Amino acid sequence: MPLLGLVIDSASDEPIVQGAMDTLDQLQVDYEVRVMSAHRNPEKVREYALTARERGIEVFISASGGSAALCGVLAAWSTIPVIGIPLASSDLKGIDALMGTVQMPLGVPVACMSVGPAGARNAALFAAQVLGIKHDDIREAFENYRNDLQGS
Amino acid sequence: MPLLGLVIDSASDEPIVQGAMDTLDQLQVDYEVRVMSAHRNPEKVREYALTARERGIEVFISASGGSAALCGVLAAWSTIPVIGIPLASSDLKGIDALMGTVQMPLGVPVACMSVGPAGARNAALFAAQVLGIKHDDIREAFENYRNDLQGS
Amino acid sequence: MPLLGLVIDSASDEPIVQGAMDTLDQLQVDYEVRVMSAHRNPEKVREYALTARERGIEVFISASGGSAALCGVLAAWSTIPVIGIPLASSDLKGIDALMGTVQMPLGVPVACMSVGPAGARNAALFAAQVLGIKHDDIREAFENYRNDLQGS
Amino acid sequence: MPLLGLVIDSASDEPIVQGAMDTLDQLQVDYEVRVMSAHRNPEKVREYALTARERGIEVFISASGGSAALCGVLAAWSTIPVIGIPLASSDLKGIDALMGTVQMPLGVPVACMSVGPAGARNAALFAAQVLGIKHDDIREAFENYRNDLQGS
Amino acid sequence: MPLLGLVIDSASDEPIVQGAMDTLDQLQVDYEVRVMSAHRNPEKVREYALTARERGIEVFISASGGSAALCGVLAAWSTIPVIGIPLASSDLKGIDALMGTVQMPLGVPVACMSVGPAGARNAALFAAQVLGIKHDDIREAFENYRNDLQGS
Amino acid sequence: MPLLGLVIDSASDEPIVQGAMDTLDQLQVDYEVRVMSAHRNPEKVREYALTARERGIEVFISASGGSAALCGVLAAWSTIPVIGIPLASSDLKGIDALMGTVQMPLGVPVACMSVGPAGARNAALFAAQVLGIKHDDIREAFENYRNDLQGS
Amino acid sequence: MPLLGLVIDSASDEPIVQGAMDTLDQLQVDYEVRVMSAHRNPEKVREYALTARERGIEVFISASGGSAALCGVLAAWSTIPVIGIPLASSDLKGIDALMGTVQMPLGVPVACMSVGPAGARNAALFAAQVLGIKHDDIREAFENYRNDLQGS
Amino acid sequence: MPLLGLVIDSASDEPIVQGAMDTLDQLQVDYEVRVMSAHRNPEKVREYALTARERGIEVFISASGGSAALCGVLAAWSTIPVIGIPLASSDLKGIDALMGTVQMPLGVPVACMSVGPAGARNAALFAAQVLGIKHDDIREAFENYRNDLQGS
Repeated sequence: MPLLGLVIDSASDEPIVQGAMDTLDQLQVDYEVRVMSAHRNPEKVREYALTARERGIEVFISASGGSAALCGVLAAWSTIPVIGIPLASSDLKGIDALMGTVQMPLGVPVACMSVGPAGARNAALFAAQVLGIKHDDIREAFENYRNDLQGS
Repeated sequence: MPLLGLVIDSASDEPIVQGAMDTLDQLQVDYEVRVMSAHRNPEKVREYALTARERGIEVFISASGGSAALCGVLAAWSTIPVIGIPLASSDLKGIDALMGTVQMPLGVPVACMSVGPAGARNAALFAAQVLGIKHDDIREAFENYRNDLQGS
Repeated sequence: MPLLGLVIDSASDEPIVQGAMDTLDQLQVDYEVRVMSAHRNPEKVREYALTARERGIEVFISASGGSAALCGVLAAWSTIPVIGIPLASSDLKGIDALMGTVQMPLGVPVACMSVGPAGARNAALFAAQVLGIKHDDIREAFENYRNDLQGS
Repeated sequence: MPLLGLVIDSASDEPIVQGAMDTLDQLQVDYEVRVMSAHRNPEKVREYALTARERGIEVFISASGGSAALCGVLAAWSTIPVIGIPLASSDLKGIDALMGTVQMPLGVPVACMSVGPAGARNAALFAAQVLGIKHDDIREAFENYRNDLQGS
Repeated sequence: MPLLGLVIDSASDEPIVQGAMDTLDQLQVDYEVRVMSAHRNPEKVREYALTARERGIEVFISASGGSAALCGVLAAWSTIPVIGIPLASSDLKGIDALMGTVQMPLGVPVACMSVGPAGARNAALFAAQVLGIKHDDIREAFENYRNDLQGS
Repeated sequence: MPLLGLVIDSASDEPIVQGAMDTLDQLQVDYEVRVMSAHRNPEKVREYALTARERGIEVFISASGGSAALCGVLAAWSTIPVIGIPLASSDLKGIDALMGTVQMPLGVPVACMSVGPAGARNAALFAAQVLGIKHDDIREAFENYRNDLQGS
Repeated sequence: MPLLGLVIDSASDEPIVQGAMDTLDQLQVDYEVRVMSAHRNPEKVREYALTARERGIEVFISASGGSAALCGVLAAWSTIPVIGIPLASSDLKGIDALMGTVQMPLGVPVACMSVGPAGARNAALFAAQVLGIKHDDIREAFENYRNDLQGS
Repeated sequence: MPLLGLVIDSASDEPIVQGAMDTLDQLQVDYEVRVMSAHRNPEKVREYALTARERGIEVFISASGGSAALCGVLAAWSTIPVIGIPLASSDLKGIDALMGTVQMPLGVPVACMSVGPAGARNAALFAAQVLGIKHDDIREAFENYRNDLQGS
């Protein structure tokens, strides 16, 4: 049963968030992937967010570009923590997605990662860190990852 | 019966959008005001957007600061045209709200006005222009406003 | 008889706004295209703007890059609503055109879309939304477009 | 025993992060506060980060301005998840702290909140969300907070 | 008979361009002042620009904020050289006016000065430099100004 | 005898300013070209600037990238008007050169053109406009250029 | 005999660089202060830079705002290392001075400090660090300063 | 025995800092190169910084991209002067690394060079300038470099 829901704006963003999926696989975090847009498919996003907790999801990762409302909308419909990846997919090269992801209003936080592919992998790592608060195997997997990194 | 729904993020933004209300009054456009946040009250925003057309609303104006998702969320839940006012209410002084309002993805436009009080008044004027396509009295009121402006 | 005037700065911008034309075709909005620059051909722009209403034009879309005065100049010469597309055609990659299009002064609004090709298509969609206030067939075409989008 | 370590750059930043402390109190999250600078007191930061887990700390919140290295340095010395608050304390008004907090390299994420006081409160809320994965009482307190918010 | 036309967007900008007027007085450059907006009074701007040369005007200075089209519109309607002062009058603090003034398209230059009061005085000085190409008394006045400056 | 001195930072910038040279040729403005850096060859720049007037130079055009001090240094050493072209040659893509060229202090103006190749051609056109104040043949050539442009 | 030359653009910048002077006093670095502008007094700057080494100056600190050419011009006229302080004195709040100070071209470096008062103090500290390579008493004073800082 | 420690974030940055190495070779400055990350290998960086002085290192050069903490962390662990090269390696193209490198807090300066390859070479040159305060042969090599540059 997946612990993590990874939501991307459109199928064309999948190559950029591939790193997140690879990292989750490497850390053996069980996840599901959904493609849906906060602007084009608001009902789909709402239903997904409202039913995720009862289906066992404990963390969301979401990725979007431009005005990048997806992360905030997931955060609005659910109390599950949301980790956001701003994508440099528009002509403004990610500064727009950074603003849309990070500048959340009082009451509804999103945990913003860095713009682009490094941010995608880091979202998976941060998800492992917060899941690791409860799940010992994930914490150990993350500790191992970091030990390898330090030795690199 | 109001033709226009003016939606603001929080009551504290009311002084900044007062100019929009004054301008709508001046042009005799009938409007209603709602205070609701796309992030804090997503269900309220959804219901308001989904039922607005049947209640006769033909245009939305919305104002928000920070990541400024409100305009885009209204646009997502409805096919009523949305005119957005980016507010300079966060520490980043409106560049964040501009990005969140204007950089909408393919399929779900928002008509972005300038940042701040001039943008608030312009939102009312632009609403009058688009309502004036159908409503002759509003077009005439707008023409009169512009004639006065040219003489200024 | 065209309801919409699409004005572009120079013929070299045509590929970028092709998406707007395709979308207008898809929604069966009748339009005309003009190539003229607010800076190089001010008289042409003035005459076009001043005579458009009597020729039946109800909405303008205009696209320009750099200081991007075209949208504002159309808005200055006419009371027809103007939808602006900021183009990322200069070395500053569209942040200049965004500022020139969106930061209109009190009294003369322009409805700014997102920078680049998504903005071009959205301009056509937003035009359909505002024309749809009066024209039932355009509103239906737009509703159908959005229904298809939600199903995507 | 505190679950959360709140680290601030200098005592002068305390008023800005007061909202984080108030929110943690409100959600009954046990926390400790430390004032130390990644640049001026690197050894203090290192020791604090290296010993925090064995003392029961499960999440860090840290706040800093300017180049804002503090969050990243905590993340480097520990595998405890770090939530970062970029402060608008320098002449560049927070855009510098945003870059320094959010643009973390591959392998060492920081969860960046919005710039300024709203970000400070949101850091506390996000901490409650991630601690709530394990601690039922904190999750309930957060759910209550959000219910109240929706009703607002 | 004035050699220089100083055009400002609105009467509220007069205090900011007072430095330009003082400097022109000091250098004994004969000038006239007009208040008119490219967006609100396009016909007034057009007539002023089209008739200025025959009235003996050899240089324009113009000042505007926001999207700052005024300078470019004067340059479009006339072949008289235009010196532009970007004003920090909007919420975006002049970066918008800088973009709108400096990023002119091929064929219609504007000579952009620095943002704000120093730019206003410099516009007057640059006008004196270009008028000094023809007018010996103005060149001498400018040379004296610069000699005094070097001694300062 | 050349009326105009065109100064470029380094030989590698010559392709970008080729448009300026072509335009000066087209308008039959006699010019000379110098390659010298305000930072690498300050004595060369000083001597060139100090002796230019006596050699008949009436206008400078200069082009540089990065911190872009060249234009300001020419303006400091001479009372000849300087027209500056900010080049997008560094990793920061011209926003640095724009700041370095346009933000001149009180007393020493530079007339800043748009960033990149359009700015290079516009520098030549603006030079023709200011030389045309005195030289009838250059004014006529510029008027012809603009007539052709309007017909385009 | 002073080892360090502190050069400021104008007397009005003295309060902002007071921190540099206080810090130099505290570290017992002997210095001299000069007020001169690269743009208004180029000859003064040239002579000061060309004669500084023979008078025993081993490091320059310079502070300027706007296009901020002063640091680069000192670096051009001398082989003495230059430490630059970008000042937030213009309407663009220091981003212009940062670009003008840091983006030096190949061959003529300037060591750029942070924008504003912290940068002014840091310039003095960095000067002490580089002078400390040769002068043991200055290195010791700096080591003491840092020891105190760590204990703070 | 090396006088200079060149520290780079990751082996993939080596091509960008090759210019620094070539320049140090040309000026016959003895140096060593280390690859280590402030975030991934904090202990390695700490030990390197803490032991560098006793091993004879008198200056550090460090290069990093993104949030760019490396330079500041070296400066925190040591009193050896640090020269920083901001790298344009992330999607935000160096503006992030510039902020992270230059905006150091009071007490711990970093000498920031320009973004990218020119900055890499300039870091080597600046290092030669500060080492030249003590080492006559390095100062002479730098003087020769600059003489050649002026003749170029």
